[in-house]
Amino acid sequence: MRELKLAILGFGNAGRAFAKLLLEKGEEIRTVYGCDVKAAAIATGSRGSLVNEEGLDLAKALRDVEERGRFDEGDADFSRLTSMEIAGWVAYDVLVELTPLAIFSGQPAIDHIKTALSRKKHAITANKGPIAWAFSELRAMAREQGVGFYFETTVMDGTPVFNLVDETLRMCKVTEVKGILNSTTNFILEELACGKDYDEVIREGKARGFVEADPSLDIEGWDAAAKTAALINVLMGAGITPKEIDRKGIEDITRDQIEEAAARGNVIKLICYGGIEAGKVIGRVRPEEISKSDLLASIAGTSSIVTITTDLMGTISVVEEDPGIEQTGYGVFSDLLRLICKTHCE
Amino acid sequence: MRELKLAILGFGNAGRAFAKLLLEKGEEIRTVYGCDVKAAAIATGSRGSLVNEEGLDLAKALRDVEERGRFDEGDADFSRLTSMEIAGWVAYDVLVELTPLAIFSGQPAIDHIKTALSRKKHAITANKGPIAWAFSELRAMAREQGVGFYFETTVMDGTPVFNLVDETLRMCKVTEVKGILNSTTNFILEELACGKDYDEVIREGKARGFVEADPSLDIEGWDAAAKTAALINVLMGAGITPKEIDRKGIEDITRDQIEEAAARGNVIKLICYGGIEAGKVIGRVRPEEISKSDLLASIAGTSSIVTITTDLMGTISVVEEDPGIEQTGYGVFSDLLRLICKTHCE
Repeated sequence: MRELKLAILGFGNAGRAFAKLLLEKGEEIRTVYGCDVKAAAIATGSRGSLVNEEGLDLAKALRDVEERGRFDEGDADFSRLTSMEIAGWVAYDVLVELTPLAIFSGQPAIDHIKTALSRKKHAITANKGPIAWAFSELRAMAREQGVGFYFETTVMDGTPVFNLVDETLRMCKVTEVKGILNSTTNFILEELACGKDYDEVIREGKARGFVEADPSLDIEGWDAAAKTAALINVLMGAGITPKEIDRKGIEDITRDQIEEAAARGNVIKLICYGGIEAGKVIGRVRPEEISKSDLLASIAGTSSIVTITTDLMGTISVVEEDPGIEQTGYGVFSDLLRLICKTHCE
Repeated sequence: MRELKLAILGFGNAGRAFAKLLLEKGEEIRTVYGCDVKAAAIATGSRGSLVNEEGLDLAKALRDVEERGRFDEGDADFSRLTSMEIAGWVAYDVLVELTPLAIFSGQPAIDHIKTALSRKKHAITANKGPIAWAFSELRAMAREQGVGFYFETTVMDGTPVFNLVDETLRMCKVTEVKGILNSTTNFILEELACGKDYDEVIREGKARGFVEADPSLDIEGWDAAAKTAALINVLMGAGITPKEIDRKGIEDITRDQIEEAAARGNVIKLICYGGIEAGKVIGRVRPEEISKSDLLASIAGTSSIVTITTDLMGTISVVEEDPGIEQTGYGVFSDLLRLICKTHCE
């Protein structure tokens, strides 16, 4: 039985959803893939860390955080090592980078991943920062070191986008991507279209958890720009950052505009776009008026869509319907299973 | 350099689209996968056959069929072997089964595939008959013989459905499938909704190539039932045939019903469904009234959709937009690439 040790950086909702899948499916992974997956370390910013290179008690770690809000300082595995120290010093096989997003730099997640790759460890991340800001460099490092680097969750939770293109659209060249990838703005635009006013929508959205305490990153299109950068960096080799995305948010959209669009049989959606202009890959985020009968118009609430056009397979779309945190956990889990399959073959 | 020899049964539009991809991408397959793909045989019903176990001239075969309507009898590789004889006697590695569909039996495609599998040859098919009528048996045979058996194209051309679940939704259990999978009925329902009458729609559809000379298999839901059977046989282990699908076509749908639905903000679509009822996998095809704002309502013309619900990843959908015959060719090609990748790893 092969052993695979994880160092998990970040143990928020996504990290815990992933850990629950590991506990639930550990036996099946041993049976199907002949691989025993263990957690060698978990790092958090404010809940302490756990390190045990023989494999720590994941069920207890989950229980402690969910019941007491932090790891148990009396635990023999309790540690004060930081995320970066764990990435650099602990003996593990796969770094699972789930720290919070720093949308304007991608740090410290980029450095965590570089540290792992430089030690010839595989890396999986659910953090779009590194993919939006430093993808080419990280991929080059992973290739040079001969290790896996997966990041399915960064654009549409566990819905296959990157793995889809890699595993099922082999030899296709992506020529265009389009999508609705920010559910906060999608929610706000829908509610405005129902006749509510802006402040009311924001207030309700915060109460229902769709809108962040500071909604400006969503409303000004930064989150959508980071996802667009990630998409076109990976699928079209753009080599750009979110700053280079031609970005316009929904902050200037008025109820009048929405009503005028509706009178024309249209809706306004915040559209992410990547394409080739004058031989160069470009990315754009902006509100666009689209027909109500268009596929994109049917993407409601927290659902999302990516439409991919390729040279050999025409245009296909993938839609994720109303995801929860379990879908993010599954995205990380599916990257781990992909890694297990790939390394099993090598 | 590894060699992989194909026996291609059927050389209609899909077969030729596949052959063009092989010619166009042969060099790239050699470079990327270290594999030299050759056609050892091509069988047709009325255009003659070609056999050359060292590899025949695919470019000439294409040219002859497209320019002269049949293979060249003066060609040294020309042969009068039938499809079944080629499946049984020629030295090849992969059977590529592209013969015309026999929707009420799946034959002779099932026997072609069995013959290949019994000789420990891999099989790829674009023919939904075998998957709708004999999937469990064929898969069991392929597993027993330790060979690959792929059939991506049978439900939605080259759009990943089966490969998607296998390669990107690992360990997920499919609990429900839903789709719009027959473009003829989708076209007819749309045209009726525009106010045209039935006979006019059928006449126009035939002229535009959307409607077959005998449209009854589409209109009565048999094509949709065969695709539903294929979907739930593969994804949910149903082990059923198209006859066991609870099937109702669009033959009784009137313009009045469509107009009444429209007045309620709805459209009528022919919906394929697979789910679990009383512990048993069941399949259903029937016209259903759905909201105009529903994702399924936006599937227009020849586009199609499959919505898959799983235990671990919630609900995702895949949409194919306006496919042409190239997409069918790519589906077969992508199965071949998958086979090359898998056998390379073993």
